Amino acid sequence: MVQASDAGDDPSAGTLPSEFALIARYFAPLARRFPGAYGLRDDVAVIAPSPGAELVVKSDAVICGVHVLPDDPPDLVARKALRMNLSDLAAKGAAPRAYLLDLMLPRATTEEWIASFARGLAQDQAEFGVDLIGGDTDATPGPLTVAIMALGEVPAGRVLRRGGACAGDALFVTGTIGDAALGLAALRGAASGLDPASVAWLADRYRLPQPRVALGPRLIGVATAALDVSDGLVADLGHLCEASNLDAIVDGGRIPLSPAARAAIANDPARLTIALTGGDDYEIVFAAPPAACGTIAALAEATRTPVTEIGRLAAPQPGAPPAVTVRDSSGAPYAFSSTGWTHFGRGRG
Amino acid sequence: MVQASDAGDDPSAGTLPSEFALIARYFAPLARRFPGAYGLRDDVAVIAPSPGAELVVKSDAVICGVHVLPDDPPDLVARKALRMNLSDLAAKGAAPRAYLLDLMLPRATTEEWIASFARGLAQDQAEFGVDLIGGDTDATPGPLTVAIMALGEVPAGRVLRRGGACAGDALFVTGTIGDAALGLAALRGAASGLDPASVAWLADRYRLPQPRVALGPRLIGVATAALDVSDGLVADLGHLCEASNLDAIVDGGRIPLSPAARAAIANDPARLTIALTGGDDYEIVFAAPPAACGTIAALAEATRTPVTEIGRLAAPQPGAPPAVTVRDSSGAPYAFSSTGWTHFGRGRG
Repeated sequence: MVQASDAGDDPSAGTLPSEFALIARYFAPLARRFPGAYGLRDDVAVIAPSPGAELVVKSDAVICGVHVLPDDPPDLVARKALRMNLSDLAAKGAAPRAYLLDLMLPRATTEEWIASFARGLAQDQAEFGVDLIGGDTDATPGPLTVAIMALGEVPAGRVLRRGGACAGDALFVTGTIGDAALGLAALRGAASGLDPASVAWLADRYRLPQPRVALGPRLIGVATAALDVSDGLVADLGHLCEASNLDAIVDGGRIPLSPAARAAIANDPARLTIALTGGDDYEIVFAAPPAACGTIAALAEATRTPVTEIGRLAAPQPGAPPAVTVRDSSGAPYAFSSTGWTHFGRGRG
Repeated sequence: MVQASDAGDDPSAGTLPSEFALIARYFAPLARRFPGAYGLRDDVAVIAPSPGAELVVKSDAVICGVHVLPDDPPDLVARKALRMNLSDLAAKGAAPRAYLLDLMLPRATTEEWIASFARGLAQDQAEFGVDLIGGDTDATPGPLTVAIMALGEVPAGRVLRRGGACAGDALFVTGTIGDAALGLAALRGAASGLDPASVAWLADRYRLPQPRVALGPRLIGVATAALDVSDGLVADLGHLCEASNLDAIVDGGRIPLSPAARAAIANDPARLTIALTGGDDYEIVFAAPPAACGTIAALAEATRTPVTEIGRLAAPQPGAPPAVTVRDSSGAPYAFSSTGWTHFGRGRG
């Protein structure tokens, strides 16, 4: 297309090969397994759900300096951007299939950076069984921006929703909570009392989330409501409660914490708030009838996904909006200074 | 999610209402007709093609200062971003159904800007029969960025490709060529000899393309190859020739030009190169057997889409790569200083 700015999209102004060379070298190989991607040599991609299934779509963007750190390795930026979207698919019961990538590159981007970014995508494509099927590459005068649209599939009519849970359902969460938020805090200097190995471990959890792609689709027919923990456990449980019109009562002592997170919180109890409200966990929080506990334990075992029961849902107080209460070991509710990030970027997410 | 920057996504740092308020006020109404969008109150959207159809997906981003001008009205920015994607669907024979929107807003964005942007989307949703079904809103330290993923559908196996044309096929193009590129040139000051009405008309063609959504799906079974003209007629015909392994011989005198474009070129013949290689036309160029001319004329009439036959495809010269030749009235080939923009941003799309 014509360019609104002379400094616009002309690659000769930068240090990179032409767009066609970049696509052929780094992106077309990521599309070679998916017939409907046409090797990225046509204008669109074609995809159909399996018989009896529907497609589930999700898009989310990562902006350098906002969602990732400027010195984060490019392969991890790529993988985080992809995994954030795969996490949403998984929490909705969808098996991932494909994704489109809009990559907006600052002029100073090097070919080495792109090569590393593409290697990260290749690694996660192999790990999660997804393929690049389309997208767009632009030069931007702004920060690196990665917009990904992921497509997965669920049996028709069976997508897991935020609403649908029942009073009396038990609440479960995968993995451990708070690592990413504590990891980012440590990366930004709030690491007092933490040994380097713990800092590195928490930072890795921030940079490379583990979407629960193996478990998610197995929760169809088991979970009554589910979503991924991206805004923080308290806020995302709040979304489930609001959509299901129920209260959540969480046993704070049962919320799964990693050894590194435990050490961080032991050193500074105020970090518990960061852990439970900070977000970026990309774990699944879900509700299921108590009778499903055995099934869930078996699924956790079969998919090698840690799952912890953390509380119960109950009918809301008359006249009061649905609420999330986290109780300590004495039964007293924790008071949080924040219940999660309600900023641009998560509300439709 | 947790924010890598203190100045990151916190709306209280700006002048806008919370993300939830913005979504409820401006974006959820755009999703109300599509059941699988769940009113933008869940984490994903669900979509299935009609029986016997496949989904066609396309994503493309618009960056302020690169693809649109900083003072372009927000409703037109929204409509152009959507229409660029709908144009690709149309050229591939797909009927548009839905889209996802990743909207990255500079901190200075006002609520009035968002209201106008959403009005533009509403207007085009009504015009083209598409619905917003998901996406994401972020604050960015960079320029306004709009990433759209559009979903349409085609009868299974019938998507129109770049390849597939045959030697002897006639070449057709919709609408008029070159208006947008000349309009942008005029907006940037190269308007010598043009009356204000022509400048305004050409600028409008730059700001608000007309995707050929009515005609595109009717070309299935008629066109042997097709794509939209976004990089410039000569470059995009080159893509068709390369994929089909054919030469194109275009009668330059038959390329459809608007009265304003004719006036601009009459005033400065060098503008012909801008018109034929500038891009942003968002018309469809396609090939079809000469015997289909009558059918095509009837489809043009039925869909009120101007269609012009501009040339022929031929077997390529032995040993030479496929080539596009535009001949003047004497039969001599035009020499272009550029055959279109090969910049970041168009190669996969």
